[in-house]
Amino acid sequence: MNSIIIPVVALVGLAVAFFLASWISKAPAGNDRMKEISGYIREGAFAFLKREYRVMIIVIVVLFVLIGFAINWTSAVLYVCGALLSVLAGFFGMNVATKGNVRTANAAMESGMPKALKVAFRSGAVMGLCVAGLGLLGLGVIFVALDLATVTECVTGFSLGASSMALFGRVGGGIYTKAADVGADLVGKVEAGIPEDDPRNPAVIADNVGDNVGDVAGMGSDLFESYVGSIVSAITLAAVAVAAKVDGASFDETTAALFPLLIAAVGLIASVIGILCVRGTDNGDPAKALNLGTYISGVIVIIATLILSKTMLGSMNYAWAIIAGLIVGILIGSITEYYTSEKFGSVKKIAEQSETGSATTIISGLAVGMNSTVFPILLIGVGIIVAYKFAGLYGIALAAVGMLSTTGMTVAVDAYGPVSDNAGGIAEMSELPEDVRNITDTLDAVGNTTAAIGKGFAIGSAALTALALFASFATTAKLKNISLLDPMVIVGLFIGAMLPFLFSAMTMSSVGKAAFSMIEEVRDQFKEKPGILKGTEKPDYARCVSISTSAALKEMIAPGLLAIIAPILIGLLLGTEALGGMLAGALASGVLLAIMMANAGGAWDNAKKYIEGGVHGGKGSEAHKAAVVGDTVGDPFKDTSGPSINILIKLMTIVSLVFAPIFVKFGGILF
Amino acid sequence: MNSIIIPVVALVGLAVAFFLASWISKAPAGNDRMKEISGYIREGAFAFLKREYRVMIIVIVVLFVLIGFAINWTSAVLYVCGALLSVLAGFFGMNVATKGNVRTANAAMESGMPKALKVAFRSGAVMGLCVAGLGLLGLGVIFVALDLATVTECVTGFSLGASSMALFGRVGGGIYTKAADVGADLVGKVEAGIPEDDPRNPAVIADNVGDNVGDVAGMGSDLFESYVGSIVSAITLAAVAVAAKVDGASFDETTAALFPLLIAAVGLIASVIGILCVRGTDNGDPAKALNLGTYISGVIVIIATLILSKTMLGSMNYAWAIIAGLIVGILIGSITEYYTSEKFGSVKKIAEQSETGSATTIISGLAVGMNSTVFPILLIGVGIIVAYKFAGLYGIALAAVGMLSTTGMTVAVDAYGPVSDNAGGIAEMSELPEDVRNITDTLDAVGNTTAAIGKGFAIGSAALTALALFASFATTAKLKNISLLDPMVIVGLFIGAMLPFLFSAMTMSSVGKAAFSMIEEVRDQFKEKPGILKGTEKPDYARCVSISTSAALKEMIAPGLLAIIAPILIGLLLGTEALGGMLAGALASGVLLAIMMANAGGAWDNAKKYIEGGVHGGKGSEAHKAAVVGDTVGDPFKDTSGPSINILIKLMTIVSLVFAPIFVKFGGILF
Repeated sequence: MNSIIIPVVALVGLAVAFFLASWISKAPAGNDRMKEISGYIREGAFAFLKREYRVMIIVIVVLFVLIGFAINWTSAVLYVCGALLSVLAGFFGMNVATKGNVRTANAAMESGMPKALKVAFRSGAVMGLCVAGLGLLGLGVIFVALDLATVTECVTGFSLGASSMALFGRVGGGIYTKAADVGADLVGKVEAGIPEDDPRNPAVIADNVGDNVGDVAGMGSDLFESYVGSIVSAITLAAVAVAAKVDGASFDETTAALFPLLIAAVGLIASVIGILCVRGTDNGDPAKALNLGTYISGVIVIIATLILSKTMLGSMNYAWAIIAGLIVGILIGSITEYYTSEKFGSVKKIAEQSETGSATTIISGLAVGMNSTVFPILLIGVGIIVAYKFAGLYGIALAAVGMLSTTGMTVAVDAYGPVSDNAGGIAEMSELPEDVRNITDTLDAVGNTTAAIGKGFAIGSAALTALALFASFATTAKLKNISLLDPMVIVGLFIGAMLPFLFSAMTMSSVGKAAFSMIEEVRDQFKEKPGILKGTEKPDYARCVSISTSAALKEMIAPGLLAIIAPILIGLLLGTEALGGMLAGALASGVLLAIMMANAGGAWDNAKKYIEGGVHGGKGSEAHKAAVVGDTVGDPFKDTSGPSINILIKLMTIVSLVFAPIFVKFGGILF
Repeated sequence: MNSIIIPVVALVGLAVAFFLASWISKAPAGNDRMKEISGYIREGAFAFLKREYRVMIIVIVVLFVLIGFAINWTSAVLYVCGALLSVLAGFFGMNVATKGNVRTANAAMESGMPKALKVAFRSGAVMGLCVAGLGLLGLGVIFVALDLATVTECVTGFSLGASSMALFGRVGGGIYTKAADVGADLVGKVEAGIPEDDPRNPAVIADNVGDNVGDVAGMGSDLFESYVGSIVSAITLAAVAVAAKVDGASFDETTAALFPLLIAAVGLIASVIGILCVRGTDNGDPAKALNLGTYISGVIVIIATLILSKTMLGSMNYAWAIIAGLIVGILIGSITEYYTSEKFGSVKKIAEQSETGSATTIISGLAVGMNSTVFPILLIGVGIIVAYKFAGLYGIALAAVGMLSTTGMTVAVDAYGPVSDNAGGIAEMSELPEDVRNITDTLDAVGNTTAAIGKGFAIGSAALTALALFASFATTAKLKNISLLDPMVIVGLFIGAMLPFLFSAMTMSSVGKAAFSMIEEVRDQFKEKPGILKGTEKPDYARCVSISTSAALKEMIAPGLLAIIAPILIGLLLGTEALGGMLAGALASGVLLAIMMANAGGAWDNAKKYIEGGVHGGKGSEAHKAAVVGDTVGDPFKDTSGPSINILIKLMTIVSLVFAPIFVKFGGILF
């Protein structure tokens, strides 16, 4: 098959994104008040992005030079390409999301649920198609333009570009959004007693900006790097696949490298079809419409995979690996829903424990988070074993590709959430009628569930991708064996297992610090201008936006550097075996912490909402106050630290992979 | 050297314990009210022990039969010996502790600080000497009575006995004490506003019983099994030591197996000397007196180790491994103090964050706990590398033996804390004069710091012991290699890393459930008998004691079984390599979780006390309320889940070690 088809499919996906984006731009943006507020949000979001890019440029330049001198300049150039495409995906997605939010609110006001759903979902879809389209475009062009040897040697640079930007995007965005959220909630809702998204709250714009920079741009860059990483690891394992062909299979290295790209291309087309199938009805459940799209794209990928595996590689085995990944991803999503939805026991249990105060709320939420790790881990284990039994190490990479093949659709569903959330905020601040808010609330509630599922998916795919990259690292570093009976490997394992804890401590402290400044600022504004709460004076939104921006940018540096420097340090000081141990340790403890944090956070959030629905005394009761504390603790868990760990483990692996030749030559200085 | 010296030294240690115990029994037990209250506590503690033993007997019988049929009957008999000696150590220690508490209060009333310190510390010392003395007696008799081949083959059964009892003791005791503590605090202190240890609180006796069953008996059995485990792993690695002798060394397998026993014997004598050196002065700091004893015994061990290593094994290298362990243990203790003492930044930071409510208190406490993992892990890494470089795998076991050689002293210092705490409780409930309470408070405050240090020590020794046992497992299972590039090992690693999370979730939920019942009970009593709070009616202590007892016994079953069944299941289903991966995963994530939980809990506790000292508004302020929430969350962290994880990782390793021959024969059924 001619490889030119890959960039062509990518361009088709991007064209659909462009079409959807202009459709959204043309939709009416509502009354002046709505335009004013969404203008503030848009302005704040782009101000943040601009300042974030300035920091990222430094990282890009430093790593470009480092890779160029230490490895080779092709890898360095591909690094820059990966970084820029990641940034571009975030920029496009955010651009549309900040237009889509106010148009969703307006559609809810003017035409009702189906139109509002359509606008919100299509805003997310632009992000999804940009992520998958740009990722596939970059990899496709690389594959067409370079010879296979250069591709397998240097394409990891592209992946490193995507990962390094993702880490800063996720951490920076995560700190931004939670500092604003915690600050707005604790002073506004708890102390001053004004409702969510009330325009009298000085931090309300920052809070809405945060939804965009954290949940849209941050999440998009996260999945961009998983998507790219899984394909890259499959490409680098192509030679391994040829050497360890399963019975009946027949293919060369080029075909093995092209195969994951084709699966991704099929996934992109399937996502486009899925996206176009999502349509709301007046009384229908939006969740059903979204799920339909997901199922349609999943089924298309499964069928195409079976055909391609047989025709291209000569064996169905490779398809089973991919399908195993896809199914494990969907199941992890469902389990996530079980632990975080108010329909099931865990959340109800937390709500019940809220009756005895915030301490028991916290304890039971942590227990739910820890409990929720069991089945995802077992599923990942089954996925690994099935993929490996059918198709070896290459199979593990294929399973990750399978899980991420419908990234376009997954991101669309995921990014739809914050757009709806923002729409609700704008409706509230613009004092639109009650029934408009009801529509946006319904959309938002569905968004919370899909976000939780998306997070489960992101973690599952991160685990498989990191594992596949780990296999690539071992191959590149020529490690035949990383034995747990070697004390250096054990030391590496301990250090690696510690890093996600340190990283989480850093990011949580950052949120704490930033939120603390925000709280002080909001309190000061209420004190300085007593008219704000009466509605006679205007709060200074810009000062809150600026606090979140500065805090996020300052605080993202240290955790970002940790992720890049730790593997380099261990590789140089203790050698490649210890580095292998470190990556495995970080992978194991990181996946667990990430699941625990994401699910505890989601469960607390929904326990609070469950109580707000009227049980255990409802809003304002002591149980509700306790639940709010749980939710606040859960905020940095689920939106900052937890999801950043996904990137941490992948980034550390890809750094090790890119710099492996150096460690082989100079590593193990200390011994 | 004649091995008969080992049991002789053990008997000397036990004789000193007996002498100290009768000295305490002869001390006056105070007035009638004091005797009445301490009678309740003693009664409750023994009632719990008796019912706990009934459960444990079942476990002992089942495992006896299982080991007898699956492995051999010598191992099975040694298993029973290990279990019974562990139970005996706990029984003796608790017997004296429940006599020492009231006598400490009385000494504080009649003669002042130096005498009170002496009584409290000697009560702890009886526990310490029983733990080390009984452990050494058992191992010494085994060594004398059996030939070396049988010893190395079957002594792991003895260790399994100690470990299995320790797990139930730690988990049961931990649930008991925290259910009572949380219940007493939340309803008594927070809702009814009565002070700590107020006799009007129905849960107050249960709370004081909990200090004994959790912090004395539970902690003692924990260190008993670490002590035994480290020596056993060194014995089983004796053949490895002979095969990999360092330059200049010259010894046979018997000498290599005897050496750790001799180091332990020296450590026991050193502990006796250290214990007899602890003396308080009227105005002196009790901490200094305790530290002096610790340093004296440490120095004695170091000197003796250098001599023994050279004379017995012909090389100083083995001494360096032991000394590395001892130093790493002490340093981890100091780091623990840094993160959990109110003298340093972390606790102050948490106290400061309490000003913005309980959510920020929780977030910053979790961050402190996570941060506090960094240096202990690096130190453990350094310890492993140093021990291995000097003396191979045998060296790692020796490092653990070194760390635990002064267990007699460590446990004495550790158990002194709950005795002082109880003395304070009795003083409060008996309405003794203010200055008596001041003395017991001073003793108790020092006890909190020593407890935190002891916990750090317990974790460090658990990590090294588990690692040494892991090496023994690999040797016994004839695994030349447990490669992280084998997907089964990775699957094992994931599952292993998940188990401490699941285990913590179980134990935390258990505390939550038990505390919930306790809260309901206390509330009911206040409602049914309004006279309780006015002091005109007597609360029903026994009902609270019974709730804690039943809950603890019921809830300890599931986590206990998990620890025993998980390795057997993985070994049988997935095989020895996957089991090796599982043990490594559990070790890595378990050590991290244990450090995180212990230190976060300790830091919250002291942040609360720091605020009670008068900063940030002092007692009753909003900051204080937030800090109380932190402390309550920290209770199961630091006294139930955290310390139980230490045992979990050792127990799973020793189960794998004992059943290794079965897994080699029948393992890996699934593939």
